[in-house]
Amino acid sequence: MTAIDRLFTRARLADGTLNTLAVLNGRISAILPAESAMEVGDAAEVVDLAGELLLPSFVEGHIHLDTSFYGDRWVPHRPCTDGFDVHERVAFQVENMAAAAPMDKRARDQLDLCIGHGSLQMRSHVMVDGSVGLSSLETILKVREDYADLIDIQLVAFPQSGILKSPGTPELLDAALALGADLIGGLDPLSFDRDIKGHLDVVFGLAEKRGVDVDLHLHDAGSLGAMTIEEICARTAALGMQGRVAVSHAYGLGDLGPDAIARMAARLARSGVSIMTNAPGHHAFPPVALLRQAGVTVFSGSDNIRDSWWPFGDGDMLHRAEIIAYRSGFFTDDALAAAFDVVTQAGADALRLQDYGLTVGAKADFVALPAAHVPEAVVGFPKARRVFRGGRLIAENGRVLR
Amino acid sequence: MTAIDRLFTRARLADGTLNTLAVLNGRISAILPAESAMEVGDAAEVVDLAGELLLPSFVEGHIHLDTSFYGDRWVPHRPCTDGFDVHERVAFQVENMAAAAPMDKRARDQLDLCIGHGSLQMRSHVMVDGSVGLSSLETILKVREDYADLIDIQLVAFPQSGILKSPGTPELLDAALALGADLIGGLDPLSFDRDIKGHLDVVFGLAEKRGVDVDLHLHDAGSLGAMTIEEICARTAALGMQGRVAVSHAYGLGDLGPDAIARMAARLARSGVSIMTNAPGHHAFPPVALLRQAGVTVFSGSDNIRDSWWPFGDGDMLHRAEIIAYRSGFFTDDALAAAFDVVTQAGADALRLQDYGLTVGAKADFVALPAAHVPEAVVGFPKARRVFRGGRLIAENGRVLR
Repeated sequence: MTAIDRLFTRARLADGTLNTLAVLNGRISAILPAESAMEVGDAAEVVDLAGELLLPSFVEGHIHLDTSFYGDRWVPHRPCTDGFDVHERVAFQVENMAAAAPMDKRARDQLDLCIGHGSLQMRSHVMVDGSVGLSSLETILKVREDYADLIDIQLVAFPQSGILKSPGTPELLDAALALGADLIGGLDPLSFDRDIKGHLDVVFGLAEKRGVDVDLHLHDAGSLGAMTIEEICARTAALGMQGRVAVSHAYGLGDLGPDAIARMAARLARSGVSIMTNAPGHHAFPPVALLRQAGVTVFSGSDNIRDSWWPFGDGDMLHRAEIIAYRSGFFTDDALAAAFDVVTQAGADALRLQDYGLTVGAKADFVALPAAHVPEAVVGFPKARRVFRGGRLIAENGRVLR
Repeated sequence: MTAIDRLFTRARLADGTLNTLAVLNGRISAILPAESAMEVGDAAEVVDLAGELLLPSFVEGHIHLDTSFYGDRWVPHRPCTDGFDVHERVAFQVENMAAAAPMDKRARDQLDLCIGHGSLQMRSHVMVDGSVGLSSLETILKVREDYADLIDIQLVAFPQSGILKSPGTPELLDAALALGADLIGGLDPLSFDRDIKGHLDVVFGLAEKRGVDVDLHLHDAGSLGAMTIEEICARTAALGMQGRVAVSHAYGLGDLGPDAIARMAARLARSGVSIMTNAPGHHAFPPVALLRQAGVTVFSGSDNIRDSWWPFGDGDMLHRAEIIAYRSGFFTDDALAAAFDVVTQAGADALRLQDYGLTVGAKADFVALPAAHVPEAVVGFPKARRVFRGGRLIAENGRVLR
């Protein structure tokens, strides 16, 4: 990152006030009320934000950089034979990927989409299984390196074909962590691998061995999902991994009755296990407000963008905040602000990001857009945006500047 | 509408082919494959669409032009004391409206928003009750007149404060129809007015007396909603009003079990009663695919845009198609096309619009945007659009040209 000395004037912060931000060496060095005098060094450039709302960059907490068709040809969605089935979808995905444009190109297109909308912190799952081995991870590691100036990316070694059902996968996952993956993933220990103990032994065993965090996919509904979360909480606590484990999707949390979900929320909070939801459209998903109220870190991501799983997604985490609000019945200003927190600070908490946010000392990664305040930004998610990385303008109106 | 002779070349239609459209006197006079020669009159202008997708203008089938805050100050949402309550929300609305910018301005701002996104046919409910009398309708009638060149608007005389609970309302509704309202509305005959027979006697009595169509608001859930729909179907059939009655919201249809909804769908289809849903985010709503399969006309609308009921809404019916698809689990190309049909042809059917669509003889009301086909337009709902009314460019990239 090139050191840039820059002043941002008339920046509207979440509290509605106009402020001047100083950026030095890519970090916020001062935030002062607009009316205060601030000494401007000779070298400093001034960016007049003219009262636009300044927001911290968005946290894309769950995406699949390796499997999107975005930027590639349109692939019509193929329904499962007999209702949603993870095994069948994984098989479709393998088939589709064989005919897709090079992964490298598709990943870059998807990154440009996300960065253009203002996500500068990301966690991507990358498929590690017998069919692709470590090749997807190798490709995405190279792309990550090329994009390091623009976006911070965590990679999860994701056993998309299961761990026990796919021989050799534990070794592949271990090799993936050695190669550069930051976290260990998992996939529906009960419904997919049919062996909750065996599956979690591998996941948490590798987490312990390699000292990495955990982020598991869990689509299982109802009591299957609930029991899996209980086991994950127990292992997290036993290993002292509080704050370092996430369950992605956790649809089953949306199926529990009032007493069961209250107990489960308390357990998640106590165990320091965070929950990722993209607020899917047509089935149950975790109750965001209730979980937050109990002290659970709830974060979000686009998940799939135009891939073998569904045709939706635009890589816009501010739009995702709107979707979370719309799906959760968040109408008040406080509730809309909570949806915004899910795609920003809560995401930073789940990803254990350092130096995040609009505070002195943090990295100067932020987004300016035309809205009076956070609730208005959430319901309108205006596409006219300027995205700054370390204080440098890197994207405008959805397009990355090069 | 000024007569404009214009040729649109390289227009991509829903079937993927490139075509030339000729527009004469505001109507589509010919559609020919791009490779065919077409005689260009001396006076004709040529608009090269360069392969952009050409779509019929969108049908905004349910909106409230009188009560939005869009373009006005931000009004934080005030929650009901004890969960959603229509009475309480109506009271909040009366309070909010007293402090709002002039209705005339707000209605124009909202129309510009809708037209900018490509809706050129609209049905708006307008509040008629003891508190406002006919004044809202008078204002909106004037606005409609001013916007006649840009958009076709049907107005529903809407008893927002009930009919029997609000003395004098039957007479006001009758006067509203005499003044220029096109349809008669209603509101939750059971839960609001507590008298289904009395309420529907007035609604269908006025429909018969004035020869107008019917579009009732029905928020009632479960069996309350189901019974109300049964009564509406029975009265529609008895009066021979098939095809002229709509139930807006009809949330209760989302609560029925498989057998009950199948029976109800058949009854709705037989009675020619259409269903309007905006695919709300956090509670049950009508099963769009099942109803369409049974032959029911399902149409859609933005409903409230940033008003006393909720903070959402952007006046974009293509985005609404995406929301319908997202909420209904529509993933395949056929299903995405069905969501698009809901905001276009099905809307035209419900509103009994003449001369609608991309066919020879129809009004040249259409939208050009960058997408390869309808499914891609639905999932991406690109904001870069050109909107043509009678062949004349009236809006670009969300802004009405003046």
